[in-house]
Amino acid sequence: MFSKKQNSSKLERVAIIGGGLIGGSLARAIRANKLCRHVAVSDISLEACAEIKKIGFADSVHNDLVEAVKDADLIVLAIPVASTAVVLKEIAPILKAGAIISDVGSTKERTQDVMEELLPSHVQIVPAHPIAGTENSGPTAGFAELFKDKWLIITRSSRASDDAIKTVQELWEGCGAKVEIMAAKHHDDVLAVTSHLPHLIAFSMMATAADLEDETQKEIIQFSASGFRDFTRVAASDPTMWRDIFLQNRASMLPLLQRFFEDLTILQKLIRREDGDALFEYLERARTIRRNLK
Amino acid sequence: MFSKKQNSSKLERVAIIGGGLIGGSLARAIRANKLCRHVAVSDISLEACAEIKKIGFADSVHNDLVEAVKDADLIVLAIPVASTAVVLKEIAPILKAGAIISDVGSTKERTQDVMEELLPSHVQIVPAHPIAGTENSGPTAGFAELFKDKWLIITRSSRASDDAIKTVQELWEGCGAKVEIMAAKHHDDVLAVTSHLPHLIAFSMMATAADLEDETQKEIIQFSASGFRDFTRVAASDPTMWRDIFLQNRASMLPLLQRFFEDLTILQKLIRREDGDALFEYLERARTIRRNLK
Repeated sequence: MFSKKQNSSKLERVAIIGGGLIGGSLARAIRANKLCRHVAVSDISLEACAEIKKIGFADSVHNDLVEAVKDADLIVLAIPVASTAVVLKEIAPILKAGAIISDVGSTKERTQDVMEELLPSHVQIVPAHPIAGTENSGPTAGFAELFKDKWLIITRSSRASDDAIKTVQELWEGCGAKVEIMAAKHHDDVLAVTSHLPHLIAFSMMATAADLEDETQKEIIQFSASGFRDFTRVAASDPTMWRDIFLQNRASMLPLLQRFFEDLTILQKLIRREDGDALFEYLERARTIRRNLK
Repeated sequence: MFSKKQNSSKLERVAIIGGGLIGGSLARAIRANKLCRHVAVSDISLEACAEIKKIGFADSVHNDLVEAVKDADLIVLAIPVASTAVVLKEIAPILKAGAIISDVGSTKERTQDVMEELLPSHVQIVPAHPIAGTENSGPTAGFAELFKDKWLIITRSSRASDDAIKTVQELWEGCGAKVEIMAAKHHDDVLAVTSHLPHLIAFSMMATAADLEDETQKEIIQFSASGFRDFTRVAASDPTMWRDIFLQNRASMLPLLQRFFEDLTILQKLIRREDGDALFEYLERARTIRRNLK
């Protein structure tokens, strides 16, 4: 199925733009598994560059984007999705023919559109999303095993050869990830349900809790083991990242949120009307579906 | 502060009505910690009675409610809250003077009202709620350590002496629980936030997920590690129990749900209007509050 012209194990230079949790973990994993000859990491923050040098998870560290990307076979954007266009415009003129551009963003359709719009035709576009992370961020937060046994979704651009997709797939598999390939819009729909809506609800619940009287708030903390703590754990995540995800994926989020409002409104009405039989049926159906998730 | 007339370590007979997860765990914990002379367990199901005998976590097992309760110093209802009135009417005539009635229900104001209405004045009323549980149910699901280091909330009835409260408090502390005493309405408000609303949302999200197209559903399962699985874990809980909780605590739930709708609607509007600054502020505020929960 795949052409043999290119061999992914021959990746010479990988440039990772952004040395935070995901970029830093990828750099560590590539080096730990010897998946290329040189890992260049670039970060917009001088402080982060100094940290990365100190930790030593890159073969070279660059505050200058162009310097990092020059001669790279594969460039991975590991930056807030909102910064994608700015970075692409800066590096587009110096990308070599056949270079592969990839990323790690949690939303894919708009990023893929931006890549296809801004990059020259001699560049291969292979957007990707590792479904892995922690609530921590920054160069010190990463570790080489972050992607082990986790899913990595590659989305299909019309501007990617089978070879280019294979190269990215093998790199992530080398880092321990399981790879799935799908359309960008489908990725965004699925992740809206499995990740974005749960995060949105968790953030929203914290706002609701914050408006309660002080005495109740104290006890919310005290008794939060009864569901609340686990439920809202993800609301401790990075607000910049989640602002960008919610905005970038609003095409999938808004209709899904509308469905959720409808389903919650049905529950509200059943409770208000004290319709025990219908309420039981609703909850039992929900439980059956949940149990199928294991 | 407490009178010395009664010594809780002199509890002779405790009757537990309902030998499921909570009742069965309490029986096991009382026996393991030698907190009374005789633990009688009653269950409405003959099959459950046979299981309890086989496991052997009670000194006596009774399908007949009256037989279990006769001569008991403390009676603990560990049954669906909706069955409270039926059981109280049956046992009220045979309760001895000074007997203490308690329970383990997740909602307290309505249960306490029902107890005060149906029980004779010579009975002490000490409602209680252990904040502990698993997604499993039935006699085999329990274990003696279920309450260790967990909260047990006692609610204050005008029909309880300090001695009676102390007896129930010491029993639960003997099982390893930490005890807090508060008004029933306050309990219901706090638990509405920390437990009931998260459960309601989780059940509702399962309904939303169930209506998506089959292809997406398959992938929700596949990628559910990205938040969804943890988030909806509690939707695997017993539908009968949760129907009763939602109905019994609707006085606290409905206004809280209304606040939650408002907060989620604000988020929805910020996303639709692509108001990144206000969205960031909202998410950052939510994160700050969440981080204070540790």
